[in-house]
Amino acid sequence: MDAADEIFSRLKNEFGFNGATGSVRFNLKDFNITVDQNNIIGNILEEWLAKWMNRNGISNRHNLKQESPDFWLNLDNLNEDWLEIKSFTGSPNFDIAAFRSFVNIILEKPYKLHSKYLLIKYKMENGIVVIEDFWLKKVWEISCTSERWPLKVQYKNKTIVNIRPATWYSEKKEYPVFDCLEDFLSALEQTIYKYHETNHMAENWADKLIKSYRNYYGTRLCIPRWNDIKFKYTGEDNI
Amino acid sequence: MDAADEIFSRLKNEFGFNGATGSVRFNLKDFNITVDQNNIIGNILEEWLAKWMNRNGISNRHNLKQESPDFWLNLDNLNEDWLEIKSFTGSPNFDIAAFRSFVNIILEKPYKLHSKYLLIKYKMENGIVVIEDFWLKKVWEISCTSERWPLKVQYKNKTIVNIRPATWYSEKKEYPVFDCLEDFLSALEQTIYKYHETNHMAENWADKLIKSYRNYYGTRLCIPRWNDIKFKYTGEDNI
Repeated sequence: MDAADEIFSRLKNEFGFNGATGSVRFNLKDFNITVDQNNIIGNILEEWLAKWMNRNGISNRHNLKQESPDFWLNLDNLNEDWLEIKSFTGSPNFDIAAFRSFVNIILEKPYKLHSKYLLIKYKMENGIVVIEDFWLKKVWEISCTSERWPLKVQYKNKTIVNIRPATWYSEKKEYPVFDCLEDFLSALEQTIYKYHETNHMAENWADKLIKSYRNYYGTRLCIPRWNDIKFKYTGEDNI
Repeated sequence: MDAADEIFSRLKNEFGFNGATGSVRFNLKDFNITVDQNNIIGNILEEWLAKWMNRNGISNRHNLKQESPDFWLNLDNLNEDWLEIKSFTGSPNFDIAAFRSFVNIILEKPYKLHSKYLLIKYKMENGIVVIEDFWLKKVWEISCTSERWPLKVQYKNKTIVNIRPATWYSEKKEYPVFDCLEDFLSALEQTIYKYHETNHMAENWADKLIKSYRNYYGTRLCIPRWNDIKFKYTGEDNI
């Protein structure tokens, strides 16, 4: 059980995070409001978690910059135990990462592939926040393929912008999440290859990643070709 | 006095916005925090303003989407009286607009050039928000030139990302704000021309804008050439 698992378990069992309710108030001079803007609840939940961990003696460093990770949980080794917080309402509509930066950053920091994601599903009605459910997952457990691209991404104005999540908890999900890191990387590689703006990187990208990963972890990633595994995720025949 | 001016005046004189203090609280079940993350205060202030306007009978429609404007103040004509809210701490570090979208959107919606910006300078210490000062300005009154580009922009990884603000209230400011809309547009046009990714648009952009503006307002914009006016803003001799 690593640091993220411990946090998850204590939130669940000690605090009672599932179903917890709350509200955000902003008092300015003599005019006070209850905040009911969804787009700030994610940030506030993240700050709440930081303070809850501090109160409960769980060592962490909260990263206030816009970059990864949201939390370092291992202060002796800032490459390990990265924790990202993603909150959403309705179905998962957050960005897992900016596509182009993710493609580049994992070459340099392959340990980012082992970040954990604390996923918080909440709802908000009349200013009351309700935690509906929460999960702790790796990136491949919240990613899937899609019709247009081997890896589900946000594609607009002919540009791949962000890596987007599967609805990992739904029984009606169109595409299943990936079984393992290597399959996720296979879909990512094929997306790099198919996308005109990154096609030029495709030839060497996997080799560079394998090398970087081996330098860090001492083990060799075996990334299958997407065409060899896609039938597992698309339901199409493997011809 | 238009709608934005009225809001500014009532905030200043009736409410006492300058120097007002407050705090944000998030209570979740039995663990309560005071929020001291700067990056959400802007959103909360915007929501606070919406509710303050409603309470005070000031007609407005708050736009919760990520696009312009933050507020429509004229519900009979949604092209007029656009209000944008920009909050910052320290010196102005917000984005006036995404460069590429701004360049395109004003061709289609020239009235965006007459949006007003309510600029709120605040500080935050131990969870206490203090409104230090606030202003109501047009886009050219918060923009300036810069060393690298005729219009001050955020330039990273060889990409122009956002239009960035001048420090309009500082006496030490390196570059003065523009005198008028036309000078702002002149700097913008020259930036479009100099920037490799938009250079292809430069030949017709000003003509298109002039035409679109004339169709809407019935008046002809006279956009000077940047080389003819830059001495006013750079201090360089006009040779």
